[in-house]
Amino acid sequence: MLFGKKLTWNPDGQHIYVTGGSTGLGLSLAILLVKSGAHVSIVARNQNKLDDALKELENHRQHPNQKLAAHSFSLDTAEESAAALEAVCKPHDGRAPDAVFACAGSSKPKFFVEMSAEEMQNGMTNGYWVQAWTAMAAAKKMVRDRTKGKIILVSSTLGYMSFVGYASYSPAKHALRGLADTLQSELMLYDIDVHIFFPPTMYTPGYEEETKTKPKITRDIESTDDGVTAEAAAVALFEGVAPRHNIFLDPLYDMAAYIIAPIWKRSVDKRVREHRAEHREYLSEAGFFS
Amino acid sequence: MLFGKKLTWNPDGQHIYVTGGSTGLGLSLAILLVKSGAHVSIVARNQNKLDDALKELENHRQHPNQKLAAHSFSLDTAEESAAALEAVCKPHDGRAPDAVFACAGSSKPKFFVEMSAEEMQNGMTNGYWVQAWTAMAAAKKMVRDRTKGKIILVSSTLGYMSFVGYASYSPAKHALRGLADTLQSELMLYDIDVHIFFPPTMYTPGYEEETKTKPKITRDIESTDDGVTAEAAAVALFEGVAPRHNIFLDPLYDMAAYIIAPIWKRSVDKRVREHRAEHREYLSEAGFFS
Repeated sequence: MLFGKKLTWNPDGQHIYVTGGSTGLGLSLAILLVKSGAHVSIVARNQNKLDDALKELENHRQHPNQKLAAHSFSLDTAEESAAALEAVCKPHDGRAPDAVFACAGSSKPKFFVEMSAEEMQNGMTNGYWVQAWTAMAAAKKMVRDRTKGKIILVSSTLGYMSFVGYASYSPAKHALRGLADTLQSELMLYDIDVHIFFPPTMYTPGYEEETKTKPKITRDIESTDDGVTAEAAAVALFEGVAPRHNIFLDPLYDMAAYIIAPIWKRSVDKRVREHRAEHREYLSEAGFFS
Repeated sequence: MLFGKKLTWNPDGQHIYVTGGSTGLGLSLAILLVKSGAHVSIVARNQNKLDDALKELENHRQHPNQKLAAHSFSLDTAEESAAALEAVCKPHDGRAPDAVFACAGSSKPKFFVEMSAEEMQNGMTNGYWVQAWTAMAAAKKMVRDRTKGKIILVSSTLGYMSFVGYASYSPAKHALRGLADTLQSELMLYDIDVHIFFPPTMYTPGYEEETKTKPKITRDIESTDDGVTAEAAAVALFEGVAPRHNIFLDPLYDMAAYIIAPIWKRSVDKRVREHRAEHREYLSEAGFFS
């Protein structure tokens, strides 16, 4: 922190809602929140994973009256996301949560010319809508309840820049940035804080899943990246949620992204161009031209 | 241009496809292209506007064998966008266009908490998919035809930053940036150039339309902006399509956006905060709390 004393956020006794809370970043964050004494509700789709996650959260309980809950919902649509939020609020007298962390999301990298329309749309659903609908439900509820809460979205470094393979995912992660930027401005009308997090590659179950469809050239380019654990990313996310958006630091991060990214991009461009012949062979064998 | 001689693009004799070509930026660009001797195909929804636009294009014809055409299609889905592209290519022996300018798009500003799920989705359709589907159809066709063409997307300054009122539009314009960034990298595999344009406020029929739903605070904030005419924006867009993406200039534009934008944002934040009481009254009268 550059200026003055460090501002910290203390969620002790608050009710925090974490989507995608059964695994990866969401679970790691939920554990940190439970350790801080917060009431924590997680939502994800898979009931078995939710059961395991809830057991894990119970292991970190700080006091007996902490409310810990797990609910199974899909968050793909506005209706489902609003229903999930209602279920989450019910044990808390129906009041809006003090903070909502939208950690849900997944990616399926693939070559653009091999993608179906459905795969492109799924990219937007699983990378953007799954968080945007939660933000919408939460914002409406916080405004109605006059809760001066926090809404935190999770983008990616692919919300800043992109390269071969991420035509369905990077637009979604950029869209989250546009949404966060709008809401940071608009929800000031109601004293609601909006944050967005741009984690690098995280070694999570989701990462292993996306590797299955990832083109070779994309894997090669990423092979020199340093990823982080979900635990380390969760600490960074937790510490980033200070009472106020830091106007001094944000431009610095932006500048770094915009000075370093173009240099990085030149080396990536070179590797893509060198891959042309091999790729043409790949497409031929895959039957793209026939 | 900072380095060496100016690189120019000469579309004379080429076939250029312009979506949203019946009005605003698309029409102004189509006129420039016709004046340059290109074969020009425009697509838009409204047949009357297309008829008028085609008459206008005919007025600028440079030689008798220039093929000028207008086709009525919706571009909201992958299927319709692919069908539009096929119709456009038919008079050209079914070959992919040499360049595709995706100028279609519209915006409907509104307060986030007053938006329906459908309005949020329409924002993504009319700001992102209407161009993404054309890019997808064009990329697949260019790769199959081995056409070393150009794909040009049109974002907005709201693809860089955002503020109150643009929760459905800014995410879409950010998403276009993520798509362009991915495709610039990925379509190098096929020697296809990808560009993206970030115009400021343009005084077009679309601008007049969006004013109808625009919140007062959004109009107030924009009142100090200097907009440009569609003609001026079209010239900038046309001149920006040099044979190569300029790696020296792009970071400069980025830096400008990221140094100037945070300063601008502080003054906007102040105005939004000052608007709180008036906005609460507005929401009450609109029945939001009842």
